[in-house]
Amino acid sequence: MILHGYFRSTASYRVRLALSLKGLGYENVSHHLRKNEQRAPDFLALNPQGLVPALVVGDDVLTQSLAICEYIEETHPEPALLPADPIARAKVRAAAQVIACDIHPIQNLKILDRLRANGLSEEAVTQWARDVIEEGLAAFEALLPETASPFCFGDAPGLADIVLVPQLVNARRFGAKLAPRILEIEANCLALDAFQRALPEVQADAE
Amino acid sequence: MILHGYFRSTASYRVRLALSLKGLGYENVSHHLRKNEQRAPDFLALNPQGLVPALVVGDDVLTQSLAICEYIEETHPEPALLPADPIARAKVRAAAQVIACDIHPIQNLKILDRLRANGLSEEAVTQWARDVIEEGLAAFEALLPETASPFCFGDAPGLADIVLVPQLVNARRFGAKLAPRILEIEANCLALDAFQRALPEVQADAE
Repeated sequence: MILHGYFRSTASYRVRLALSLKGLGYENVSHHLRKNEQRAPDFLALNPQGLVPALVVGDDVLTQSLAICEYIEETHPEPALLPADPIARAKVRAAAQVIACDIHPIQNLKILDRLRANGLSEEAVTQWARDVIEEGLAAFEALLPETASPFCFGDAPGLADIVLVPQLVNARRFGAKLAPRILEIEANCLALDAFQRALPEVQADAE
Repeated sequence: MILHGYFRSTASYRVRLALSLKGLGYENVSHHLRKNEQRAPDFLALNPQGLVPALVVGDDVLTQSLAICEYIEETHPEPALLPADPIARAKVRAAAQVIACDIHPIQNLKILDRLRANGLSEEAVTQWARDVIEEGLAAFEALLPETASPFCFGDAPGLADIVLVPQLVNARRFGAKLAPRILEIEANCLALDAFQRALPEVQADAE
């Protein structure tokens, strides 16, 4: 498998975490987002949306980080990223989607640039990102089980943790306030080798 | 099952389509989004994010439309909304996520109101929505199989169609250009009773 990504891309970080938790090896190809390398013709031929991550599996190109994580889960079931029960699976997926649909796309580089192009000041752009992240993480936390556990949904990391930890990098960049439970889950994740291997700053393309 | 939704909510429409395609009955509870009824205390107690749809199954409340669709698929496998092969499933999910992550959240009511609050004119807001939808649908179309079929991925409607058709209501509202292949898929979907039953304008809360 070849992962087309970027060390600083939140969505690439999710896929690195899924691969790392499953103990899967892969080749990494980096596309520098600030230099717009993901818009180069050879990458657009691979992924017309011009977004990282893209996971190449044989002749197939898989895109969209959550779809890639589900693929990894279906083809390498252990250790499980989703519980077995359908109701429990739906709750973990919903928490992951709060971040993947309702936070991340609204505060990523592309959208913030679009806000700047519409005349928003740097201060207003930062405030936008911070508000979206704080509101979204409050919604995320409200979906977690009432009884706190080391990870989002129990005693092992899963899909919700995979999506949460990368989002917290952005949260800090924009100065968002983080709740104690979120920080505790993050600390428990980052204590694991699988998370340490996937950190942005230890990737070969980190600057 | 009780579906908390709103006739005009795109995400509620997706869930109605999934339930309709599976032939599942449900009770419908409407929350008027323009009147902010989804922020009423009794609904916030059910879904702290204050968003529709929410599907109540026994004592459990499921949120996030794609997570709900996956739940429906897992508990009622026939007719299938996803293919059986993991690579093929990943491609259908990715197409659905282009709309659910990269189009819908960036042009929904909440975000457009946030743009207005940041001083954008009505014209700029409409342009924002149209651009996001046109760029996103181009990316969606690029993920469809090279050989055109009646539905997004083959001879039967699935998860990608469920997400596409509701998005086209918004596309028209903002005057986005629609490609011939997209229009053909939509026409094939809307020719089906299951899609007709889920149309916004035939819901009990339609105005």
